[in-house]
Amino acid sequence: MDKQTNIQELKELVKKFCEDRDWDQFHGAKDLSIGIITEASELLEHFRFKPKEEVEKLFEDLKKKEEISKEMADILYFLLRFAQKYNVDLTTALTKKMQENEKRYPLFKAKGSNKKYTELE
Amino acid sequence: MDKQTNIQELKELVKKFCEDRDWDQFHGAKDLSIGIITEASELLEHFRFKPKEEVEKLFEDLKKKEEISKEMADILYFLLRFAQKYNVDLTTALTKKMQENEKRYPLFKAKGSNKKYTELE
Amino acid sequence: MDKQTNIQELKELVKKFCEDRDWDQFHGAKDLSIGIITEASELLEHFRFKPKEEVEKLFEDLKKKEEISKEMADILYFLLRFAQKYNVDLTTALTKKMQENEKRYPLFKAKGSNKKYTELE
Amino acid sequence: MDKQTNIQELKELVKKFCEDRDWDQFHGAKDLSIGIITEASELLEHFRFKPKEEVEKLFEDLKKKEEISKEMADILYFLLRFAQKYNVDLTTALTKKMQENEKRYPLFKAKGSNKKYTELE
Repeated sequence: MDKQTNIQELKELVKKFCEDRDWDQFHGAKDLSIGIITEASELLEHFRFKPKEEVEKLFEDLKKKEEISKEMADILYFLLRFAQKYNVDLTTALTKKMQENEKRYPLFKAKGSNKKYTELE
Repeated sequence: MDKQTNIQELKELVKKFCEDRDWDQFHGAKDLSIGIITEASELLEHFRFKPKEEVEKLFEDLKKKEEISKEMADILYFLLRFAQKYNVDLTTALTKKMQENEKRYPLFKAKGSNKKYTELE
Repeated sequence: MDKQTNIQELKELVKKFCEDRDWDQFHGAKDLSIGIITEASELLEHFRFKPKEEVEKLFEDLKKKEEISKEMADILYFLLRFAQKYNVDLTTALTKKMQENEKRYPLFKAKGSNKKYTELE
Repeated sequence: MDKQTNIQELKELVKKFCEDRDWDQFHGAKDLSIGIITEASELLEHFRFKPKEEVEKLFEDLKKKEEISKEMADILYFLLRFAQKYNVDLTTALTKKMQENEKRYPLFKAKGSNKKYTELE
């Protein structure tokens, strides 16, 4: 489906859902950011205290993978709603950010490194 | 741009960036979730201690709006990378989740309410 | 009780609980930080989408206040465990940080302002 | 210092700092929770993409350990401020929560296990 759906359609889907429920009044930038971070936390919680191998195994369990996918959907939902409500073009924002990252993480420095750009030499 | 871009294209963009840098070794589900939540925190920090009106004004300042858009791009970047690496179709996940939410938040109960579905009567 | 209990005693309480369960193996700095942030998220979730007045009212409901206090306890639990395990004196750390904040937020600049120190003029 | 300092003293320290700056108006429960989670994120960010051994090594570097301790202090600062402002006794809350955890994680089930209580059998 990711191949056939553009971001705008997803934004519209989320917009309709929220507007049908009169949620504009609750969906300020601060609360939508809280929405994103609390859902990000639920995603992260799946992996708490788990070593790498155990984390990888979770994805072999279809039911578990489904749960994890739902947490990802929750994050995306709030991110799309934020972008829709505040008129942010996510594709433009991502493309720009990636160009910035190209400079921050040039291949000859960043290849095979887990360092933050501020620590790269 | 959101009208002309599908999720798959964005996934490919992020994939190439990360694989060019040999980052597969660092990009397990746990660390990518940490990526999402730390960027979500940077987004939220823009609104810390700010009342609603002040938050809304931030978006009138183009430079500030640009900064906020970049934090959103950072979240999307990690979310796309996660989905790409663990083979999650975000459109499917979102569509399913929205169907679930349709049931959790039926119009006659949820309209105009800021309650969580577990608290709706 | 806060008047009669020193931080060290609380650290010992948490240490015993975790060591009795052989949890040293799971309690690295990364997972304990995940512990802190996921519990911080549960605290924050209580206030999601709620305007100020509604938030304040939660504290008048004893059952709700108890729930909120428990989330705070969960954060403190992981913070104490981290400090105990990695030999961090929280009182020293806080005192130092407060001295730094005294400089970052001098009275004549910071009084009545919600700005971050980097934005104070 | 943790042996000689009780929570109440730390609460007073934080209270004075904030009241001197007239910050009561900004320090509602929602924004203080945002304070906690954004600082928790800064703590977590130190360990992002780092394998266990690399994380452990950070603590041998005194400058790095100092930075990490400061993030912990930031979390504690907001937690104390929250508790002070909303009249929560942290010692009582922690003690109660630990009693609950004793039941949720009985020794014979929880020893050596990284499972959440809802998954323990």
